[in-house]
Amino acid sequence: MKKVSMYEENSFKESGLSRLLVHDSPYFKILNFNFKAGQELPLHSHDIEGQVSIAVLEGKGEFLAAEGATLPAEPGDILISEIAEPHGLKAETDMRVLVTIAPPI
Amino acid sequence: MKKVSMYEENSFKESGLSRLLVHDSPYFKILNFNFKAGQELPLHSHDIEGQVSIAVLEGKGEFLAAEGATLPAEPGDILISEIAEPHGLKAETDMRVLVTIAPPI
Repeated sequence: MKKVSMYEENSFKESGLSRLLVHDSPYFKILNFNFKAGQELPLHSHDIEGQVSIAVLEGKGEFLAAEGATLPAEPGDILISEIAEPHGLKAETDMRVLVTIAPPI
Repeated sequence: MKKVSMYEENSFKESGLSRLLVHDSPYFKILNFNFKAGQELPLHSHDIEGQVSIAVLEGKGEFLAAEGATLPAEPGDILISEIAEPHGLKAETDMRVLVTIAPPI
């Protein structure tokens, strides 16, 4: 058992999203990404099996999907996507998100 | 790909924690539990392989662990536990938490 205080252990960077590896095990990989307003995780996909969830902890922006589609991303919103399906995020305000990948990449 | 707005789709109940099944797949199971102040997920464990993460979205309380141990649970805090290891949560204020189980129970 372990606890991670993401708000204390991760910060924001001017150069791009700030990435904290929270946990990595045979079961899942958990990351915290912090975005300054305007930063993004570009639309991407990996040709492997599994799913990823992206939960908004703080701030607002847009989830990015295939063919230019977007979905509002606000606190309490969670996106679930196949890893092989294009997904991304663009921050309008400073944002903190929790990313879980299973099985771990 | 799907999006769930947990703050809109789940509420609080006087009778006990309010449980929203966010997602269930062969890869992971994702739940949102809302607690009114004073409610708890009692210390429990299941004798199966896998891990569970519990992330605090809103509110504060305590993570519960074996032998009466507790850990502060505040926004941005995440607990990772073996499913077979005793874990739980007690809310001091109203709380919203995100629970991810892999592999799914």
